[in-house]
Amino acid sequence: MAKHRVVIVGGGFGGLHAGKALQNKDLEITILDRRNYHLFQPLLYQVATGGLSPGEIAAPLRAIFEWQKNLRVLMTEVTGFNIDQRLVHTQMGDIPYDSLIVAAGAKSTYFGNERWSSIAPSLKNIEDATSIRARIFGAFEEAEKESDPDKRRALLTFLIVGGGPTGVELAGALSEIANDALKEDFRSFDPEDARIMILNSGPRILSSFSESLSKSAELQLIRLNVLCRAGVRVVDVSPEGATVMIEGRQEFMPARTVIWAAGVTGSPLGKALAAASGQALEKGGKIRVEPDCTLPGHPEIFVIGDMAHFQHGLDQPLPGVCQTAMQMGDYVGDLIQKRIAGQTKPPFQYWDKGNMAVIGRNRAVAQIGKFEFTGYFAWLLWAVIHVLYLVNFQSRIIVAIRWGFDYFSFNRGARLITRQDPPAQES
Amino acid sequence: MAKHRVVIVGGGFGGLHAGKALQNKDLEITILDRRNYHLFQPLLYQVATGGLSPGEIAAPLRAIFEWQKNLRVLMTEVTGFNIDQRLVHTQMGDIPYDSLIVAAGAKSTYFGNERWSSIAPSLKNIEDATSIRARIFGAFEEAEKESDPDKRRALLTFLIVGGGPTGVELAGALSEIANDALKEDFRSFDPEDARIMILNSGPRILSSFSESLSKSAELQLIRLNVLCRAGVRVVDVSPEGATVMIEGRQEFMPARTVIWAAGVTGSPLGKALAAASGQALEKGGKIRVEPDCTLPGHPEIFVIGDMAHFQHGLDQPLPGVCQTAMQMGDYVGDLIQKRIAGQTKPPFQYWDKGNMAVIGRNRAVAQIGKFEFTGYFAWLLWAVIHVLYLVNFQSRIIVAIRWGFDYFSFNRGARLITRQDPPAQES
Repeated sequence: MAKHRVVIVGGGFGGLHAGKALQNKDLEITILDRRNYHLFQPLLYQVATGGLSPGEIAAPLRAIFEWQKNLRVLMTEVTGFNIDQRLVHTQMGDIPYDSLIVAAGAKSTYFGNERWSSIAPSLKNIEDATSIRARIFGAFEEAEKESDPDKRRALLTFLIVGGGPTGVELAGALSEIANDALKEDFRSFDPEDARIMILNSGPRILSSFSESLSKSAELQLIRLNVLCRAGVRVVDVSPEGATVMIEGRQEFMPARTVIWAAGVTGSPLGKALAAASGQALEKGGKIRVEPDCTLPGHPEIFVIGDMAHFQHGLDQPLPGVCQTAMQMGDYVGDLIQKRIAGQTKPPFQYWDKGNMAVIGRNRAVAQIGKFEFTGYFAWLLWAVIHVLYLVNFQSRIIVAIRWGFDYFSFNRGARLITRQDPPAQES
Repeated sequence: MAKHRVVIVGGGFGGLHAGKALQNKDLEITILDRRNYHLFQPLLYQVATGGLSPGEIAAPLRAIFEWQKNLRVLMTEVTGFNIDQRLVHTQMGDIPYDSLIVAAGAKSTYFGNERWSSIAPSLKNIEDATSIRARIFGAFEEAEKESDPDKRRALLTFLIVGGGPTGVELAGALSEIANDALKEDFRSFDPEDARIMILNSGPRILSSFSESLSKSAELQLIRLNVLCRAGVRVVDVSPEGATVMIEGRQEFMPARTVIWAAGVTGSPLGKALAAASGQALEKGGKIRVEPDCTLPGHPEIFVIGDMAHFQHGLDQPLPGVCQTAMQMGDYVGDLIQKRIAGQTKPPFQYWDKGNMAVIGRNRAVAQIGKFEFTGYFAWLLWAVIHVLYLVNFQSRIIVAIRWGFDYFSFNRGARLITRQDPPAQES
């Protein structure tokens, strides 16, 4: 009898955990991903601000699953599905499945203004991170050569659109760069003159945290010379800066660097799946799933992680954070093999292990259940947990060492400006 | 009285050592480089084969010179010189000098066939290295999806054009990938089926080493399943493979990956300098310099490193290796400040500290003076020296750790395939 075929779309937290949950089972598992590595997204902002190298937060999928012989990895792009025939359409052809786990994650959204993406990069993958890194350090390099004070001020102005954890962590790291790492590096200006601003549409940053932690974070940012402006809506972005609406007035903010950390939406693959189950997408481009994470009407299809809208027994739908994807991946992997064994499993239950955001060198805010932590201790907690969660052991040691060095030397070692196109002279 | 202004073109080994030799002197030093980091080129092949991340072999120039207050770094491209007026033309304007040190290095040459550069990348900078890395690992990924045996054989064929240290080190590392790191990673083929070939125009690989070391290296490569073909001249390169002339016959070699490690030529900035001193460029695009490394007829201009042709009192001109650049940099830095103090210095004397090339996991060939080493001991020597020479201490520890892990786990941790252009789906 042919083995049960599980196809997993996406090698992120959800896909990884689902694959691992199925180890040692008599199945055929295929993971499909456009890339050959698993990315530890929570630390992307570190690559964007020169604290880590790309290779230190990415682990090759094949290495992770090297010894799991029931699982193969195919690097290919998924283009759609044939749900009646149980096929996944990919660039290399059709892949049949008995169970399908769709964990393709989320992408950035500019809320209809996608043309801004070339001017104001977002931070969802390694190419984004190295691109932002080039802009940030490039801005300081240009400032060293600029004699006009107004132009230099614009070069040293950094706008971050979005007051969630990504925006806050970027802002804090940027401030670290200006105040510590680059402090002695320039001769014609003082990097501490850099102005960093978070432009938040809502009334407070870190709105998924408690009000007191929000306030604490904002105070810590102010101490780092980062300004948070609330109630700001971006209406246009250009290479010269951003045009915003704030308190009914329109304002232009000259800035060389605008970073978009303002919104994510589920993978476009969600559209086809939602249509197949006769529903529209939920807010954020997500698909409403059943209590067992299946697509309504299709118990053989599971949707997990950032693509899933899960609100059973909860006030709010589950957040699009790594924990959600990891736990859902564990759950559906276990559910699949239980079903094959003729067993069942209770509905998915999310275990909220807490929420954290780091702010600069050695401060953070963290909430775990009823407990709230701020400052240095929260940061220690954050650092330990992130190092532990790095899936690749080698990365853990290297990241720990690099952070150790950077911490004690007030430096950021991985701040290369690498180019996407080779310079003209080299051909 | 205005300070003596020294302008250094290039932040590689030559420029770095010249700048450091001038520390604590009452001068104004400016280093100009297109990039913001110093690249440890001898380990570029490690990035190209996934053993190290770019950030681990590159150190930000500003960090290196952070505390040298008489030196500033400007990230800009040099476009030419006005030698009469003592100006360096750059993209940000003209920079005046009293002493000029030109250390702009070398670039790859395809001997007139520059159009091959997009098909057969060379290895001179980080972008080259990550591009080659994407091709190598991409070829294995494609092979996993390919069912046609002939196409798969072409995907698993890797041609390296050039039998010097770069070609040999690349080939050895590629073999490591196929035989060790990726051994368990694929399900539809055996990575050990990969065929790696060095195509050398001359009669033996590593022609700058002794004959016995050449032979030893070739034997070690054969044991690693790398084939060396001598007397091969490449006449064309296409995405399907390479057309070569060997023993008078033309042959087509189907191969997805062709890497060009066959020739370098001095920076194009050399042309202007050579013309100014009324001479033609030497072989390899180099400029003939005086015994004190100055441009003939222009004692205020120094040319060092890969751009310089220095053959005073020697059978052969000095090789274009890092040592040459480093020692010339030390020399001209010291000479400049001695001149200002009214002193002189004997001509430049090169101290040949030896030659090494690594072959795979734990073998190398090394010649130091009269002594020759092969095998494991030569490799240990190589590893220690390269870690010590990494200019950035943090990099040393990280590289040592990464190699330690990779060595004991037979793995290569930094083998991401990163894209130059974002995938279509993400916009």
